[in-house]
Amino acid sequence: MNANDKFIATAAQVDEAAVQPLPNSRKIYVEGSRPDIRVPMREISQADTPTGFGGEKNPPIYVYDCSGPYTDPNAKIDIRSGLPALRQQWIEERGDTEVLPDLTSEYGRQRAADPALDELRFPGLHRKPRRAKAGANVSQMHYARKGIITPEMEYVAIRENLNRQQYLENLRNTGPMGEKMVKLLGRQHKGQDFGAAIPQEITPEFVRSEVARGRAIIPNNINHPESEPMIIGRNFLVKINANIGNSALGSSISEEVDKMTWSTRWGGDTVMDLSTGKNIHETREWIIRNSPVPIGTVPIYQALEKVNGKAEELTWEIFRDTLIEQAEQGVDYFTIHAGVLLRYIPMTANRMTGIVSRGGSIMAKWCLAHHKESFLYTHFEDICEIMKAYDVAFSLGDGLRPGSIYDANDEAQLGELETLGELTDIAWKHDVQTIIEGPGHVPMHMIKENMDLQLKHCKEAPFYTLGPLTTDIAPGYDHITSGIGAAMIGWYGTAMLCYVTPKEHLGLPDKNDVKEGIITYKLAAHAADLAKGHPGAQIRDNALSKARYEFRWDDQFNLGLDPDKAKSFHDETLPKESAKVAHFCSMCGPHFCSMKITQDVRDFAAQQGIGEAEALEKGMETKAVEFVKSGAELYRKV
Amino acid sequence: MNANDKFIATAAQVDEAAVQPLPNSRKIYVEGSRPDIRVPMREISQADTPTGFGGEKNPPIYVYDCSGPYTDPNAKIDIRSGLPALRQQWIEERGDTEVLPDLTSEYGRQRAADPALDELRFPGLHRKPRRAKAGANVSQMHYARKGIITPEMEYVAIRENLNRQQYLENLRNTGPMGEKMVKLLGRQHKGQDFGAAIPQEITPEFVRSEVARGRAIIPNNINHPESEPMIIGRNFLVKINANIGNSALGSSISEEVDKMTWSTRWGGDTVMDLSTGKNIHETREWIIRNSPVPIGTVPIYQALEKVNGKAEELTWEIFRDTLIEQAEQGVDYFTIHAGVLLRYIPMTANRMTGIVSRGGSIMAKWCLAHHKESFLYTHFEDICEIMKAYDVAFSLGDGLRPGSIYDANDEAQLGELETLGELTDIAWKHDVQTIIEGPGHVPMHMIKENMDLQLKHCKEAPFYTLGPLTTDIAPGYDHITSGIGAAMIGWYGTAMLCYVTPKEHLGLPDKNDVKEGIITYKLAAHAADLAKGHPGAQIRDNALSKARYEFRWDDQFNLGLDPDKAKSFHDETLPKESAKVAHFCSMCGPHFCSMKITQDVRDFAAQQGIGEAEALEKGMETKAVEFVKSGAELYRKV
Repeated sequence: MNANDKFIATAAQVDEAAVQPLPNSRKIYVEGSRPDIRVPMREISQADTPTGFGGEKNPPIYVYDCSGPYTDPNAKIDIRSGLPALRQQWIEERGDTEVLPDLTSEYGRQRAADPALDELRFPGLHRKPRRAKAGANVSQMHYARKGIITPEMEYVAIRENLNRQQYLENLRNTGPMGEKMVKLLGRQHKGQDFGAAIPQEITPEFVRSEVARGRAIIPNNINHPESEPMIIGRNFLVKINANIGNSALGSSISEEVDKMTWSTRWGGDTVMDLSTGKNIHETREWIIRNSPVPIGTVPIYQALEKVNGKAEELTWEIFRDTLIEQAEQGVDYFTIHAGVLLRYIPMTANRMTGIVSRGGSIMAKWCLAHHKESFLYTHFEDICEIMKAYDVAFSLGDGLRPGSIYDANDEAQLGELETLGELTDIAWKHDVQTIIEGPGHVPMHMIKENMDLQLKHCKEAPFYTLGPLTTDIAPGYDHITSGIGAAMIGWYGTAMLCYVTPKEHLGLPDKNDVKEGIITYKLAAHAADLAKGHPGAQIRDNALSKARYEFRWDDQFNLGLDPDKAKSFHDETLPKESAKVAHFCSMCGPHFCSMKITQDVRDFAAQQGIGEAEALEKGMETKAVEFVKSGAELYRKV
Repeated sequence: MNANDKFIATAAQVDEAAVQPLPNSRKIYVEGSRPDIRVPMREISQADTPTGFGGEKNPPIYVYDCSGPYTDPNAKIDIRSGLPALRQQWIEERGDTEVLPDLTSEYGRQRAADPALDELRFPGLHRKPRRAKAGANVSQMHYARKGIITPEMEYVAIRENLNRQQYLENLRNTGPMGEKMVKLLGRQHKGQDFGAAIPQEITPEFVRSEVARGRAIIPNNINHPESEPMIIGRNFLVKINANIGNSALGSSISEEVDKMTWSTRWGGDTVMDLSTGKNIHETREWIIRNSPVPIGTVPIYQALEKVNGKAEELTWEIFRDTLIEQAEQGVDYFTIHAGVLLRYIPMTANRMTGIVSRGGSIMAKWCLAHHKESFLYTHFEDICEIMKAYDVAFSLGDGLRPGSIYDANDEAQLGELETLGELTDIAWKHDVQTIIEGPGHVPMHMIKENMDLQLKHCKEAPFYTLGPLTTDIAPGYDHITSGIGAAMIGWYGTAMLCYVTPKEHLGLPDKNDVKEGIITYKLAAHAADLAKGHPGAQIRDNALSKARYEFRWDDQFNLGLDPDKAKSFHDETLPKESAKVAHFCSMCGPHFCSMKITQDVRDFAAQQGIGEAEALEKGMETKAVEFVKSGAELYRKV
């Protein structure tokens, strides 16, 4: 659909690309302590090892799956109806919420009543909004602090473990080599975790304790029961966020829904809808109702539209109504730039690039116009009251983040970070889940200071960073300049990485850019998990490397983050199907292959009586015989 | 040209894409102490700052330029003739070389005499090969140790300084704001250099001393006088290498020459020709004669072709003849896998991916077949004798580098590194320039150990690493998995980064992949320079950020590493020329722009009497007036 085409709700369709099965993959559900806790994972099956390499079975790998029902062939997908409300029962059971007769927000009611919007309004919501009963607090942090393990907490515990025990068990059961397969494929380097406290196995109780102490959050608004629980914290897998959203200059509702399904397909753990153009309210409704992942927003963007872009006309009342409007739609976390204080604003005057955060600049403008602290700051406890009534989490925005290498780690940025730490204390006083946003543009050697100060000022509340970009000189490649910084800060302890696409600084990302940003950030997050020594993180690397070594081409593609691209790259030089079982590749060609030599080496090692080599004895014996047969040639014809 | 088309020497043409001027760029030459020392740089001119932002002049930026005469509109380019021999005079003047009557290598003479090769042989070489006179040593290290500053050393000193003093002088001369412009645009963060010793200004004497102590090399074979001198060492700008070369399965001479010109256009500091297919000798001749950058090879690849791929049939005599053949063609550095010792080979038996270095596996195979140390090791001093007669530098290959995260930093890899340190001592005894190759696949937290051990064992001989890849799970994106590791190890002290393209593990890179790899590694190398605090590294970031802040779109594109891509990305959403002077972009649209707010902030800061704000007083006064006039609106129509 073209951005200029008219969007018609009744004709809306799911993006076909988002519901295609991934190669050799199957959606499985791991059941928890009750039948409605069904945690999705993607199972990737593998071919057997070729006989010449040992011939063993390779059990399937389980990977984290953000794609929701879209990749489940048994799910009926109709984006006009939205996803099933999987958490509805859990929310109702707690008995601390009430169904409201109508939207609380005045603006929300106006939009709902406007017949001009009928044509594009999401048609599938037949629920009324829900809110905490008077005096109740429905945040996961509140439950956690009361010692309650919610189904959401159990769900994320199962999810984080990635069915690892099952995989190891399957390895053990492959045959006589089982124990040795476990040793080989389950081995992992000891990481450097900089003081994180990652257990070998994630238990529901561990999840509860982490949420209770504020070291992790489970963002799931009671009005977004369609979302699959996930957790953000430094003792869990590093997560990534994908920004989508239209601007005054382009993109339609349909395109934004497509970007959301596309993002989650490739591994976006959360999605932020940063729309600033037309029909923000309706666009968001479509996104939330169809999103299996938590949705974040920056409510001030919409508030600004309500005052026609005049920041100085913003008021607490307009902002408050916007928060409630969005909370009742089901937004899971709000970026709130409450740390932009009057005293920090002049500190940005000497910067190279001033204030580059949109939210930060809106608030700076307001502060300047009124010569007082912003309503985000003065009404912070009022905001907490709203957050806890719906379980919306804070993402405390870094309105003064640096927009250039020059401005990195300056007094404005670090001053604001201290204030964000103070606001974290207030949010926690209300049991409101909180994460902290971080920079921006920072050269490599100054990245760790960001993490260290954040841990200190914000007492281990999860850090959520944009990159950081490690140089300014590569517009068009800022997914990479920032992917470097993201991997590093993820290693140091950042819990969620906000992706940057190749279009950063240049334009709005399209679907291709979204995918490029997602994959770049998935690999950065995984590199961080490996470096932290996150238990089991290396399993996928090990399996893929084994497939690579054994010339199981399809397995190599399928175990990777982007099987489609890997396969298409391979096929550019060796397109035939037969090449995918060939024991060589286009880099060296068929006449010599370094991978093959290792078999000879193993043979030699065995002759020398190298103990560890026995681990692979079955494979080696086969090979030794074959080596003699084939006359010591390096290459065996396929 | 298609790989299957026949290559005809007399019809060969330069790739038109390689000779297009870069936007707003001009080739300049900075003259040294003698008129034939003319060091190329690219001057990028900039527009004036718009009046609303201050209206100041922005002097041109100077950037490192690897593209040789191709981007000089005054140069006559004919790839059938090759590039001018700019160093010829310097080599002759030294009087320590002699012109040989014919090629020394038997194989070289055979190829030259074979009429079947006439059609594809490079037609433009009318020089005879040159070699050191009996007993002479013509390496730059030898001269350096004798206290001689060669023209090559002066050339690289000028090159490394990037005309920085001229730029600062031009800033100073922009008007009354000059000193403040210097302060703003010349400012740089103090880096963390992990014990490097980078001076504020590179002098010819500093170059000499670094080459003398082995901490840097200037790879330039006396038979490659076409090359523009460059330096590789941890106290200089971080360099990158691009691998090209055909395999038995594809690519033609013409494609490889195009990849070389394409690589250097985008910033490849050296190029390795890793051809393993047909006509290796002739392909290399075309590449060298047309290359403005040093060319590296792995001679064992060609030697293996000479014995029809049977590693065990390799002999010292065949290898020796290959070294001489290539040295007389002008190869500037040889990868020699002399550290693959018998005792390390069994250590690879328990690896996940065995021996993945092609050269390493050839030598391992040889060692196993003969049950003795390789001729590379036993004849190492004989090799040194050849190297010093032509000034070919060693790149001591890491034949046992890890091919998977699993295998990182294992005993085989680290054992070999120790041997490479011992070989470095031997090379240095002969005054042969030496760099050391490094991994491979290494998780982030294990990267620094590689650098630390390399510095220790190899006594600061320059490190030259492939990536390292920080995870195995992203085939199709290994330029990024490795770009992360490359930036980090560059920061820690690696002198040259060998690029990885998106096709790594999947196929041979085409021109697009080459460019993607180059730009990724250029930005990684630059991020490393910034983090090390390399003097002046931040100048380009500062200039680009200033252009970005002032909405000088074309300047933002042109100051970046890839102006073409940046412009095309921008134009996807705002294609009109008028949009390139617009004071907004497609991310926020025309109604609100965070960048604009900073002007208000500066005004406010000035009112508060913030001292430093005066630095920008001219800009602020203009803006203050304008702000009042425009009725405190955030957006001014263009």
